[in-house]
Amino acid sequence: MAHPLSVGLAGLGTVGGGTLALLRANAELIAARAGRPITVTAVSARDRGRDRGVPLAGLRWFEDPVALATDPGVDVFVEAIGGADGPARASVEAALAAGKPVVTANKAMLAVHGAAIAAQAEATGAPLLFEAAVAGGIPAIKALREGLAANRITRVAGILNGTCNYILTMMRAEAREFAEALAEAQRLGYAEADPSFDIDGIDAAHKLAILAALAFGRPVDFGSVHVEGIRSVSALDIAFAGELGYRIKLLGIAERTAAGVSARIHPVMIPVTSPLAPVEGVFNAVAFEGDFVGRVLLEGRGAGAGPTASAIVADLIDIARGRHTPPFGMAASLLSAEPAVPITEREGAYYLRLMVVDRPGVIADISAILRDHSVSLESMLQRGRSPGEAVPVVLTTHICREAAMAAALARIGALDSVIAPPTLLRIEAL
Amino acid sequence: MAHPLSVGLAGLGTVGGGTLALLRANAELIAARAGRPITVTAVSARDRGRDRGVPLAGLRWFEDPVALATDPGVDVFVEAIGGADGPARASVEAALAAGKPVVTANKAMLAVHGAAIAAQAEATGAPLLFEAAVAGGIPAIKALREGLAANRITRVAGILNGTCNYILTMMRAEAREFAEALAEAQRLGYAEADPSFDIDGIDAAHKLAILAALAFGRPVDFGSVHVEGIRSVSALDIAFAGELGYRIKLLGIAERTAAGVSARIHPVMIPVTSPLAPVEGVFNAVAFEGDFVGRVLLEGRGAGAGPTASAIVADLIDIARGRHTPPFGMAASLLSAEPAVPITEREGAYYLRLMVVDRPGVIADISAILRDHSVSLESMLQRGRSPGEAVPVVLTTHICREAAMAAALARIGALDSVIAPPTLLRIEAL
Repeated sequence: MAHPLSVGLAGLGTVGGGTLALLRANAELIAARAGRPITVTAVSARDRGRDRGVPLAGLRWFEDPVALATDPGVDVFVEAIGGADGPARASVEAALAAGKPVVTANKAMLAVHGAAIAAQAEATGAPLLFEAAVAGGIPAIKALREGLAANRITRVAGILNGTCNYILTMMRAEAREFAEALAEAQRLGYAEADPSFDIDGIDAAHKLAILAALAFGRPVDFGSVHVEGIRSVSALDIAFAGELGYRIKLLGIAERTAAGVSARIHPVMIPVTSPLAPVEGVFNAVAFEGDFVGRVLLEGRGAGAGPTASAIVADLIDIARGRHTPPFGMAASLLSAEPAVPITEREGAYYLRLMVVDRPGVIADISAILRDHSVSLESMLQRGRSPGEAVPVVLTTHICREAAMAAALARIGALDSVIAPPTLLRIEAL
Repeated sequence: MAHPLSVGLAGLGTVGGGTLALLRANAELIAARAGRPITVTAVSARDRGRDRGVPLAGLRWFEDPVALATDPGVDVFVEAIGGADGPARASVEAALAAGKPVVTANKAMLAVHGAAIAAQAEATGAPLLFEAAVAGGIPAIKALREGLAANRITRVAGILNGTCNYILTMMRAEAREFAEALAEAQRLGYAEADPSFDIDGIDAAHKLAILAALAFGRPVDFGSVHVEGIRSVSALDIAFAGELGYRIKLLGIAERTAAGVSARIHPVMIPVTSPLAPVEGVFNAVAFEGDFVGRVLLEGRGAGAGPTASAIVADLIDIARGRHTPPFGMAASLLSAEPAVPITEREGAYYLRLMVVDRPGVIADISAILRDHSVSLESMLQRGRSPGEAVPVVLTTHICREAAMAAALARIGALDSVIAPPTLLRIEAL
C-alpha cells in the first residue's frame, strides 16, 4: 500500500471536527477504498484551548491556516473555516498556488469566487473538490459532474436548505405560523440564532449557483441568481396549497432555455405527486434532468457533521486514488457564458391570495385587471362569507409571463377593496 | 485537446445502439467533459444486414467480438452483447487480458463471474466499469463506490427491476390481477415475451449481488442471494396492503448484521410513508444507509436505450479522464468473505393471508399454532361473513424469526379449515 495521504485541516467546528472523527472511525475501510491511509497530521483553528470532543494529540497545530495550507508536510488542504473571504479564501488560494489539492465545504466562497478559484486550480494543476458544499452527504456534485456527464442537462431543481424545509414541514404538519416554526427550529439547533442566511434563501442560492455552473458548463455566477426566502409564507397559504393539491417548498431551480440560463430560489407550490413533495424535515433532494437519462433524483441529509464529513472524505479518497476532474467538469476555456435570463421572463402558473372586502364587484375588478394583462384564470376560491369584512380570495392562473403577472399584481394591490399586500407564489409542475 | 478515445462496441441492440446514438448526439459536450473526443471506430454484432436506425458508415465491422476486443486500433472495449457466458464473457476476458479497459452493462455476467473477472482486471491493470449494469441511468455504482466511500454501509435496499415495478403499480392502480398486468406490460414493451427473467426476480438478484459486493467489500456472490419473484402476488393482497397502510414492492435488500451479510429479492410490504413507496411504474430506486451519511436515496429510469447509454458513456468519460478505481472499490485481496446469512435467519414482521372456512374455532386453531412457535400477532382482519364458506383472514405479526414463521405456516397450511396455500409477505420498515 502506498504512503499515507497527509491532510492539513483548517477549521475544527462541526464540519472539521466531523471530518477528523470520520477519518479516525473508519480509518481501515477508508485506507482500503483509497488505496492508502488518509491521516490528518496538522490542524488550525481559532481557539486552541477549546474542547472540541475530538483528541488533537499528535497533530501539529498552526495558528495561521495559510501557513498550514502551504506546509511541505501537508499533501492535501481541507478548508472547513467558512465564509466567502478572509482566512478561508486566503488559505485556499495559498494551497492552490502551491499546487496542493484542496477540499472545501465552503459554498459561499465557491458561489462568490468560484470562477476565479477554479481558474487558479486549473492553472496550477491542483485538484479542487467540493462535494460537501452542496446538499451535504448526497453525492450530488459527483453525480452531476461525472455520473450524468454524458447528458445535456436541461434542469436542476432541489430542496437545498434543510432549515427552510424543516420550517415549512412544521408549518404544514402542525399548522403553525412561520415565526413559531422558526423558534422551534432554533430550539432544536436546525436554525442559527441569526437565521437570515438560511431563511432568506442565500445559502440555497450559493448551492444553486454551483450546481448551475456544473450543469450548464458556465462560470459560477451568484449575482444572476434570483433569491427570495420563506419569511412571507403563511400558514394560511400552506393550508390553501393543501386544498389545491400542492405543497409549498423552498426550491432552487436552474433551467436552460432557448434564451439562456435562469437560476432562482423562491418558495414554490409543487403538486403533492411530485417526487420532491414527500421530502420533509431537514432532508435535501436534488433532481437533474438530462436529455438521455431523463430525471434522476437524489435525496439525503443536507447538513450535519456526519453527512458533511462523508462528502469531504469522499473527495479525499478521490485525491488519494488520483481521480482527477476539472473543478467544474471541463476546462475553464470551454465554459460558455450563456446569457442569464431574469425572473421577469419566467413562463409559468401562479397562485395569488388576496385579502379583500367581501362586497359585490370585487372579483369583477380583479378579473378585469388580469384580463387586461392577458393572465388567464384557472381557478378561484373564496371560503366563507362576511359581508363588508375581509375574506381571503385565492386565484390560480394558467401559464403566463411573470412580467405580465407582476404588472397585474401592482394594479390589483392598489385596489381599495384589497386591504393587504397580495401574496404571490409560483406554481411549478416538477 | 488529447487524441480521441477509440471505442470498440460489441452488440448493437438497445444498449449498443443507444450508446452509439448518444456519443454522436452529444459529441462536443462529451469531448469537453472527457477532455478528448470519444468516438466509436469499430463495431461487432450478429447480423450485419439488419437496419438498426443508426448509420454504421465509416465504422470497421468485426464478425468476432473477441477480435474486436483485442484489436490494436481499439482503446476501450464496450460489451453490450449480454448473457453471462458465450461471446460476452469471452470478449471481455480477451480485452482485459490485452490490458484494455472494458465497459459493460452485463449484470448477469458480473453477478455470476464478477469476482473472477474483477481479479483478472486487477491483474492486468485494465479498468473494468459497469455503471449501466445496475439501475440503468441512476449513477448508483459511482455513488456507492466513490460518493459514499467514507461510510461503512449497513444496508442497501432498492427497486431494481422496472418490469416488476410496472406490473405491481398497474395491479394496485387499476386493481388488476398479475396475469392481466403482465400482458399489458408485454404489450407496451416493458416485459419480454418470456418474462421469467424479470418477474421471477433473477434480473434484480443479479443487480443486488453486484451492489452487495460493492457495499460490503466482498466478492460477488450471486449464489447466496435468496430470490423470489412476483408471480404469487395477488390483487387481493395488494388491496389488503393498502388497507393496512402498506405498498407491495419487489425489493432487493442487502444487509450487514453481526452474523454476516444477507441478500434477498422478494416482494415486501413497506409503509406508504417509505421513500421507496412512491417510486412507481418503470422507475428504479436505491437507498443506501451509511454510518456517517445516514440514508441516501437515488431514483431514476432503470432501463431503456437513453438511460443505459448515459451510464455507459459516463464510464467512458471516466476512462478518458483516467479516473481509475478498482472494480469493486478496493483491491481484491482486501475483500472480505463475511458469511452469507440465510433467509431463515431473517428477523422481521410478516403479513399472512389465509383462505379459511368461516366457522367457529378456526382463528383459535391458528392463534394456538402461532403461539406454539412464539409468533406474536399484531393485527387480525376478517372482512365479511359467509358461514360455512371460504373467507380471507389477514394477520400481521410482530417481529419474529423467519424459521419460526415458516414452521408455524407449515402447520397452519395443513389445517382442514385452511382451504388454499397461505400467502406470506415480509413487512419491512424501510
